[in-house]
Amino acid sequence: MTGITNTGSNRMVLLSGRAHPELANNIARELGTELVPTDAYDFANGETYVRFGESVRGADAFLIQSHPAPINQWLMEQLIMLDSLKRASAKSITVVSPFYPYARQDKKHRGREPISARLIADLYKTAGADRLMSVDLHTAQIQGFFDGPVDHLMAIPLLSDYVRSVVDVDNVTVVSPDTGRVRVAEQWAERLGGAPLAFVHKTRDITVPNQAVSKEVVGNIKGRTCVLIDDMIDTGGTITGAVKVLKDQGAKNVIIAATHAVFSGPAVERLSSCGADKVAVTDTLPVPPEHQFENLEVLSIAPLIARAIQEVFEDGSVTSLFNGRS
Amino acid sequence: MTGITNTGSNRMVLLSGRAHPELANNIARELGTELVPTDAYDFANGETYVRFGESVRGADAFLIQSHPAPINQWLMEQLIMLDSLKRASAKSITVVSPFYPYARQDKKHRGREPISARLIADLYKTAGADRLMSVDLHTAQIQGFFDGPVDHLMAIPLLSDYVRSVVDVDNVTVVSPDTGRVRVAEQWAERLGGAPLAFVHKTRDITVPNQAVSKEVVGNIKGRTCVLIDDMIDTGGTITGAVKVLKDQGAKNVIIAATHAVFSGPAVERLSSCGADKVAVTDTLPVPPEHQFENLEVLSIAPLIARAIQEVFEDGSVTSLFNGRS
Amino acid sequence: MTGITNTGSNRMVLLSGRAHPELANNIARELGTELVPTDAYDFANGETYVRFGESVRGADAFLIQSHPAPINQWLMEQLIMLDSLKRASAKSITVVSPFYPYARQDKKHRGREPISARLIADLYKTAGADRLMSVDLHTAQIQGFFDGPVDHLMAIPLLSDYVRSVVDVDNVTVVSPDTGRVRVAEQWAERLGGAPLAFVHKTRDITVPNQAVSKEVVGNIKGRTCVLIDDMIDTGGTITGAVKVLKDQGAKNVIIAATHAVFSGPAVERLSSCGADKVAVTDTLPVPPEHQFENLEVLSIAPLIARAIQEVFEDGSVTSLFNGRS
Amino acid sequence: MTGITNTGSNRMVLLSGRAHPELANNIARELGTELVPTDAYDFANGETYVRFGESVRGADAFLIQSHPAPINQWLMEQLIMLDSLKRASAKSITVVSPFYPYARQDKKHRGREPISARLIADLYKTAGADRLMSVDLHTAQIQGFFDGPVDHLMAIPLLSDYVRSVVDVDNVTVVSPDTGRVRVAEQWAERLGGAPLAFVHKTRDITVPNQAVSKEVVGNIKGRTCVLIDDMIDTGGTITGAVKVLKDQGAKNVIIAATHAVFSGPAVERLSSCGADKVAVTDTLPVPPEHQFENLEVLSIAPLIARAIQEVFEDGSVTSLFNGRS
Amino acid sequence: MTGITNTGSNRMVLLSGRAHPELANNIARELGTELVPTDAYDFANGETYVRFGESVRGADAFLIQSHPAPINQWLMEQLIMLDSLKRASAKSITVVSPFYPYARQDKKHRGREPISARLIADLYKTAGADRLMSVDLHTAQIQGFFDGPVDHLMAIPLLSDYVRSVVDVDNVTVVSPDTGRVRVAEQWAERLGGAPLAFVHKTRDITVPNQAVSKEVVGNIKGRTCVLIDDMIDTGGTITGAVKVLKDQGAKNVIIAATHAVFSGPAVERLSSCGADKVAVTDTLPVPPEHQFENLEVLSIAPLIARAIQEVFEDGSVTSLFNGRS
Amino acid sequence: MTGITNTGSNRMVLLSGRAHPELANNIARELGTELVPTDAYDFANGETYVRFGESVRGADAFLIQSHPAPINQWLMEQLIMLDSLKRASAKSITVVSPFYPYARQDKKHRGREPISARLIADLYKTAGADRLMSVDLHTAQIQGFFDGPVDHLMAIPLLSDYVRSVVDVDNVTVVSPDTGRVRVAEQWAERLGGAPLAFVHKTRDITVPNQAVSKEVVGNIKGRTCVLIDDMIDTGGTITGAVKVLKDQGAKNVIIAATHAVFSGPAVERLSSCGADKVAVTDTLPVPPEHQFENLEVLSIAPLIARAIQEVFEDGSVTSLFNGRS
Repeated sequence: MTGITNTGSNRMVLLSGRAHPELANNIARELGTELVPTDAYDFANGETYVRFGESVRGADAFLIQSHPAPINQWLMEQLIMLDSLKRASAKSITVVSPFYPYARQDKKHRGREPISARLIADLYKTAGADRLMSVDLHTAQIQGFFDGPVDHLMAIPLLSDYVRSVVDVDNVTVVSPDTGRVRVAEQWAERLGGAPLAFVHKTRDITVPNQAVSKEVVGNIKGRTCVLIDDMIDTGGTITGAVKVLKDQGAKNVIIAATHAVFSGPAVERLSSCGADKVAVTDTLPVPPEHQFENLEVLSIAPLIARAIQEVFEDGSVTSLFNGRS
Repeated sequence: MTGITNTGSNRMVLLSGRAHPELANNIARELGTELVPTDAYDFANGETYVRFGESVRGADAFLIQSHPAPINQWLMEQLIMLDSLKRASAKSITVVSPFYPYARQDKKHRGREPISARLIADLYKTAGADRLMSVDLHTAQIQGFFDGPVDHLMAIPLLSDYVRSVVDVDNVTVVSPDTGRVRVAEQWAERLGGAPLAFVHKTRDITVPNQAVSKEVVGNIKGRTCVLIDDMIDTGGTITGAVKVLKDQGAKNVIIAATHAVFSGPAVERLSSCGADKVAVTDTLPVPPEHQFENLEVLSIAPLIARAIQEVFEDGSVTSLFNGRS
Repeated sequence: MTGITNTGSNRMVLLSGRAHPELANNIARELGTELVPTDAYDFANGETYVRFGESVRGADAFLIQSHPAPINQWLMEQLIMLDSLKRASAKSITVVSPFYPYARQDKKHRGREPISARLIADLYKTAGADRLMSVDLHTAQIQGFFDGPVDHLMAIPLLSDYVRSVVDVDNVTVVSPDTGRVRVAEQWAERLGGAPLAFVHKTRDITVPNQAVSKEVVGNIKGRTCVLIDDMIDTGGTITGAVKVLKDQGAKNVIIAATHAVFSGPAVERLSSCGADKVAVTDTLPVPPEHQFENLEVLSIAPLIARAIQEVFEDGSVTSLFNGRS
Repeated sequence: MTGITNTGSNRMVLLSGRAHPELANNIARELGTELVPTDAYDFANGETYVRFGESVRGADAFLIQSHPAPINQWLMEQLIMLDSLKRASAKSITVVSPFYPYARQDKKHRGREPISARLIADLYKTAGADRLMSVDLHTAQIQGFFDGPVDHLMAIPLLSDYVRSVVDVDNVTVVSPDTGRVRVAEQWAERLGGAPLAFVHKTRDITVPNQAVSKEVVGNIKGRTCVLIDDMIDTGGTITGAVKVLKDQGAKNVIIAATHAVFSGPAVERLSSCGADKVAVTDTLPVPPEHQFENLEVLSIAPLIARAIQEVFEDGSVTSLFNGRS
Repeated sequence: MTGITNTGSNRMVLLSGRAHPELANNIARELGTELVPTDAYDFANGETYVRFGESVRGADAFLIQSHPAPINQWLMEQLIMLDSLKRASAKSITVVSPFYPYARQDKKHRGREPISARLIADLYKTAGADRLMSVDLHTAQIQGFFDGPVDHLMAIPLLSDYVRSVVDVDNVTVVSPDTGRVRVAEQWAERLGGAPLAFVHKTRDITVPNQAVSKEVVGNIKGRTCVLIDDMIDTGGTITGAVKVLKDQGAKNVIIAATHAVFSGPAVERLSSCGADKVAVTDTLPVPPEHQFENLEVLSIAPLIARAIQEVFEDGSVTSLFNGRS
Repeated sequence: MTGITNTGSNRMVLLSGRAHPELANNIARELGTELVPTDAYDFANGETYVRFGESVRGADAFLIQSHPAPINQWLMEQLIMLDSLKRASAKSITVVSPFYPYARQDKKHRGREPISARLIADLYKTAGADRLMSVDLHTAQIQGFFDGPVDHLMAIPLLSDYVRSVVDVDNVTVVSPDTGRVRVAEQWAERLGGAPLAFVHKTRDITVPNQAVSKEVVGNIKGRTCVLIDDMIDTGGTITGAVKVLKDQGAKNVIIAATHAVFSGPAVERLSSCGADKVAVTDTLPVPPEHQFENLEVLSIAPLIARAIQEVFEDGSVTSLFNGRS
C-alpha cells in the first residue's frame, strides 16, 4: 500500500470572544489549560476583526462566547470567529453559548415576526458550528432548532443546592412568576422534596370598563417561604412584581432563583429593593460590580461547563452529568 | 428580443392522502373545487404506491394528510406524494397536516433521544415541501423546526365559541390538566371573559416511603364549571384523571375541550364514563362512528383550513384570520 | 501550544431496529460483540419512541434495520433512530439495510409517479446517515441515489455455492423469470461454469382479439435443470408462473434462487406447490416459521454483513470481499 | 397597501452551446422563435468564455447542449452557461441534454469507481439547473439522480414508425445485442405488434482451456427480419458483432435502430460494411457528412423536443406526449 | 381539470431597516410608493425585534439597509428582517446593501483570519436572501461570494459627472491613494477623457535602520489638478496623507471622490483641513449634519438604486444602466 | 459498554490526474512515498474513466491535478476522481490545483457573464472536496469562493530568491505590466529590499480621432534593471509588450518573473525574442521541451507543495511556511 501512516492523537482547544473573558478563563482553569491567544478588536467603523495566535488545524475547538448587551455585537464576533475556525481547518467546532441569544423569540407570537432563535441556530451552522452547548434554554425546543448535537446543560442542581442551604425546605412553596413556567416550577418542586406549587398571573375584571390589570396568585403561599424561579431576569419587572404580590398576599419571605442574570435597565434597582431575601443567579452572563447588591448571590457555572467540555472531548456522556436527563 | 411571451395565470390544486378523505373532501367543497384524482394503494409487502391522475405542472399544490394511527404509514404516504409532486413540476407545494405528527417529541427529554418533530419537518423539506400548514401545534416552537413559511392555524375561536354556547361564562374556571399548558389555559381564560385559572398536578409526600402519587388541584374550582382544556386527547388518562380530581374537590361540572381527537386505546371508554358534561373536539383527525359517544361534539375544521388555503393562494393574509396572531 | 492532547482510539457500535432482531444479533455475534441496548416501542397512537441505553458519542455507529411488512413502520423507526444517533454525537453513521426499501420504484414508470427509491436515500441522508450498506440492490443504479459511499454486498457467491452443491452443473440452464434480469442471469451463468441462458416473457397474439396473454420461454431448457433466479420473491406470482412454463416446456427440474424472501400474501402457498425442487433464499428479511416449507433453504447473510462492517470499521476494503467487484 | 403592482407575463428563451447548433436552431424553428444571441469562444489556454447578448431576467430558460466528443469540453461549456443564466436572474433553468453525458457510468461496476452519471446530475444542479430534459436515458434510473423534475422523452415512437415503414412486421424478431437490453427489446416488440424476442450474448466453453469467447443467439431468428435495437451506437463493435452472428445463424436480414449516434472511431466503417440493410438513428448527436453512409437514416428529434419544451412552458403535460408513459 | 385558476399579478414592496431611513424613503419616493410600515426596536438587553405592518405574501421584496456604525447592530437587524420576510411568504427577497459590510475582509491577509465578506454573503443566503444589490463593492470579486444573482451598481458615472463640472479635464491627473486601486483610477481616467495616472505608496530606505516610512508619488502630478479616488473613506488617514504628499510634490490642487462616506473617528477633521478643494461622496451611508463640512458634496444615490430596483421588478436589464458593464 | 475499540491511526495518500504526472511524482518523492496506482483513460467518445488501484478507505487523500490545455478535459477528470474518492470512503479530500482553473473569470466584467472561478469552487465541493490547496491565486479573493479551508501557497519566496541571485538588487525597479497588479509589485519590492515601483498602462490621446492605443510607463525605470512580474504568462502579449516599452524608455535590462507558465499560442516565440534577459517561472503547469528556450528558468514548486501537504496531514501550520502570511 502506498501513502504515509502515523498514529493519531486528538487536541482540544478553547477559544473565547470578548464578551465575558472571566468565564472563559475560569473554564480553562477548571480544565487545566489556557485559552488560545487571540487578537480581536473593532475597526473605527465598528467592523470586528479576529485572528487566532496559534494553529488550530485538526483540533476539537470549543468557542465560548457570552451574550450580554450589546448582544448583536457579540453575536457577530462569534460568527466571525466561527468562520476563522472553519477556514483554519479545525476538526470540529463546538459553540458554547451559555445564554442562548434571542431565545425568547422562539416562535411567531403574531404574523410577520421572525423566529430569531431558529435564525441564530442557522447562522451558527452556516458560519461553521458542528455542535452547540448551552445552559437552561428558554424553551427546551430550541434544541431542535439546530441541525446537529446540542448539549443542554442545567443549572437547577447548582441553584437548588444553594437554595436548600438557605431555606427550610419543609415550608417552601415554589412559585412561577407567570403561566409559562409552571412546568419548570414543578421540576424545582421535585428537587426541593415535593414542595407545593403556585403561580402568579395577570387578570382583569372585564365587567368594569378600563379597569387596570391586576396580578393574582393561584396556589397557597400564605406564611410560606416562596422560591420564585425563572430562567432569566431581564428588566426584572415581572419577577419583582411577583414578589410584591406574594408579600401582599401573606408570603413569609421570598427567594429568587434564576439562571441568567441579564439585568437590563432598572433590574438591579428593582431587585435590590423588592423585598426578596435572596437573589441567586449564575454567571452565564457577566455580573459587573455595578450590578451587584447585598442580597445577590452569583454562583459559578464554569465547573459545569468545564465538565461537559471534557465529556465531549473524551467521548464520554454529558447526559451522565444529570442522571440521564439533558 | 427573442423568445416567446404569454400572459400568466395561476392554478391551485388540492391533493389528499388516504388517512382522512372526508376532511380533504370537505375542504375542497368549501373552496368550490375537487381533489385531484389519485391512485394510491399498498403493495402486498406494504410498500405504498401513488400516482396523480392529472397534470399538476406549474400549480400551487396543497397536499392534505391527516395522521391518525397507523401514523408511520400515513407519514410515508405523504412523503411519497411530496416526491411525486416535486418531480411532476408543481410550482409550489404546501403540506397541510392538521395534526402535526410526533409533535410531543419536540425536545430531548433525556439523553440519546431523537427530536422527532424536527426530523419530520426536515423530512417534509427533503421530500419537496415549500410551506407547512397545521392546526394547534403541541408547542408553538415547532414553527421554527421548518425552514420556510408555516401557517399556524388556531382552533380556539372555534372551540371557545362552542363552549360559550353551552356554559354560563360567569361561573367558569379554566383548568389545565397539567403544569405544561397553563399558558394555553390563560389564553382560553381571556377568550371566556377573564375567567379564573387552575391546574392539576401530580404530587407525592416524600416523608412517607413508597407512598403513591396523588393528584392535586391548584386554584379555586369549588362550585365552578370547569373548562378543562388540552391540545390533544390521546389515551385520555391525564384528562379524565383531572376530571375525577376536579369533581372530588367540588367542581360543579366539567367541560372538556381539545383540538385533536387522537382517541387511542381506552380513550373513548374513559371519556364517555368520566363524568364530563361535554367533550368538544375538532375533526383534524378522523372520528369514526365507533369513537363517538353521547356527550361528544365534533366541530368541523374544514372551513378554517379552506379559508387559510384561499389566503395563501391569493397572496392574502392568514394572520388576518386571527386578528394579527398566528 | 495551549489545549489538551490525548491519544486517539476508535469505537464501533452496532444498533438495531425491531424489524429483524435475529439478524442483528447474528451479525453482532459474528463480530464478537453485542448490540447497544435500546428502548424502542410504539405509543398508543402509533408514534415510535427510541432511546439508546449507552453513550454512542464519538463512535462509528452501524444501524441495522430490515424491511419486511409493515415496511413504512420499520422505515420510520430507522429514520428516528438515525436522528437519535446524529443528536447523540456519533462520529459516523452507517445505515445497514440488507433489503433496500422501495427499490422497485427506482424510476418513473409513468408520469406523475414518485421515485421512491431516491426519496429513501434522501431521507436517510437528511436523518443523519453518512454511508449506506445493502445487499443485492434491485438495480445497481440505486448506489447513485445516495450522496456518499455505498457498500453494495452481493449474495450470489453464497447462493451459487449452495446451488452448486445440489445440482449437476453440466446440465444447468440459468433462467431469468422476465426480460429485466437477463443480465443477472448471465452473471449466474458465469458462476456456474458458463451455463446457457434462457428467459421467460409474456406475449400475446395480436391477430386474435381479446386473446389472453401467454408466457413463452426463449432459450433451450428441454431436459435441463433450470436455475431460476431473481433478486427478490414478493407474492411469487411471476417466478412460480415461470416454473410452470419451464416444466410445461420440458425442463427436467427447477431450482429457485433469490436473495430477498419478501414472501407476501400467497407466496408461500405458491412456492411450496409450484413444483420447484428447491427454493434458496437468504435471511436479509425475516423468514418466520409460518413462512417455511419443506423445500426452502434459508442461508444466513450475517457472516457477509459482519465481514463488511469489519472492513469498514478498520478502513479495509469491502471490494476485496468480491474480488474487485462491488 | 404599499408597493407597486403589475400584471404578470411569462417569457421563454432558448439558448444553445456550440456542440450541435443545427439541432438547437431546428428546435427554435419548430417553436417559431430564435436562439438568444450568444458569445462563446475558447481562450488560448482552453478556458471557455460565454456571454448572452440579451437580458434573460425573469425568463424560463431552456439551455440546449448536445454531447459529442470532445464531451468534457461541451459539458464544461454547459456548466458555465448555467452559471451565467443563474447569475443573470433567469426565473427557471431547464437543461436540455438530448444525449445524457456519462450515462453508462451509472453505477460502480467495480470498487473505487465513480458514478459519473450521478456526478453530472449534481454538477448541473450546482451550476443552476432546476429541471432536466433528455432523450432515452441509458437506464431510466438516471431520472432519480437529479433532485428535481426530469422530462424523459422517448424516441421509440419515432424510430419504430420508421421501422414499420421499411419492414414486414409479421416476419420480425426484435433482438437485443446483449443481455442488458432485453427489456427494451420487449417494449419494441409490443410496438411492432407482439413480435418475438431474441438476444445475443457472449459465452465460453470452460472445459476447453483458453478457448476464445464466442457469441451465441438465444431465441428464434432463422429466416426472420431482425430488428436489432440499442440506445446508442458508440464504436459499433457490439452491434455489428451481433449482425454477423444473426446472419451466420440464418437471419434473413437485419435492421439496426438506435437513438444516439455516438459513432466513435471505427463505427462508421463497421456499420456501413456489417451487412445491415438499414441503420436508423436520430440526431440527438450531430451526424456530420463524414459520418453518413448509404444505408443510414437520420431522423430529426427536434419536433419532439420542441413539443416537450412547449408543454413545460405552458404548464401542460409532457406525459401526454407518450400516452401516460414517461 | 380540477383546481382553481386566476390571473396572475406581481407586487413589489420596499422595506427598510433603521440604519438610514432617509435613503430608503428617497428610493421609495423615486419609485412613487412608500415603505411597508414596520415595527422595529431593541429590547433592554439589546435584542432586536421586527414586525412588518402589512402582508408581504407573494410579493417581490426589496430590503434596504445601510451599514454605518454600529455595523454589527444593523447587520443583525437586517438578518432578522430577512427571516421575517422568508417566514411571511415573500415570493422573492432582494437584499439592498448600498455599502457592503465587511467588504475589506475579502481574503485572508494572514493565516487564521476569517473571510468576513464571504461570511456575510452566506449569512444573507441563510436568512433568506435570493438576490443581492450593492454599490461599488470594495473588490468586484465579492459578487462571486453570493450564490445567486448580484446587481452591482456603479457610482462612477454619478461622481465623475460631478467632477467634470468642477475641474478643467485637460489638466487632470487621476491618482490612486495606494497600490491597490490603480485599476480603478484607470477606469476614472477613461471617463475623464484619457487623463494620465499616478499613485501614492509607502516606501522605506532599508539601508538606514529604524528609518520611518515615507510616502512617495509615482507618476507626474506637478502643476496638475489631482483627482484622488477611492471606494470608501473610513478614518481618512490614507487619503488625506495622499493629499499632503501630492501638495508637497507640486500638485496644483486636489479633488477627492469616493463612493462610501464611512467617516469614522478623525475623518471629518482630517478631510476638512487637508487642503483638498472638494470632497465628493454619495449617500450610500448616512452623512449626519455633524459630519458635513464646507467642501463636502454629497450626491444622492437614490435615483440609481430606484432605477435598478425597477429593472429587477420588471424583468428589465440592470446592465443596460451601465452600457453593458456591471 | 458494548462495541469494539481499536487504536486509531492516520493514513495519507497522494493521487494524481493525467495532466502533469511529473509534478505529482516529484511531490510524492519529496514526501518519500508514491502515488496511488490509478487507471485513467478516455473512451472513444471522450468520456473519461477512472479507477484507483488501492483502497483509500479512511485515508486523508490529496488529489493533485494541474490545468494546462485542454483545461476542461483535466477539470472533468479531476471532478470524476473526486467522486470516486468520495464514494470510496476517503476520510478527507484535499484538492491540490497548483494553477487554479478559470481564475481570471473571478467576477462579471459585464452583464450576463459567468463567474467561472466561483463555479469551479462549487463544482469541487459538490464532487467531494473538503479543502483546497493552490499556488498564487490570480486574486486572493478566490479563497473566499470555496466554502471551507483553502491553503494558499506563495511562490514569491521561491521566485524572488532566484531573482536576487541574478540581479544587482540596488539597481532594481519592480514593474507591474498593467494597472491591476501594482499591489503585487509592491510585495515584490519589499522582498527586494524596498525597490522602487513602476507600472505600464495603455493610454490614448482622445483629441486625435482613431489614434491607436499606446503604452506608457508610469514610474522611473531609466537605466534600471526592471523586474517585470505577473502571476501568469498566457499568450505573453501584455508582458512582452511591456518589455518593449521598458526598453524603449531606457530600461537597462528586464527580468520577467511569473508563477504560472501557461504559454499559449505565440507565448514562447514572443518571450524568447522580446529582449528579456531572463524569464523565471515555476512548474505549476507542465513546461514541455518544445516550450523551453534559452533564457527560461523553470523552478520546481514540488518542495513547497510537499511541505504544505505534510503540514496539513500532521495538523501543523501552513501559515508558518510564509511567516504568518497565507
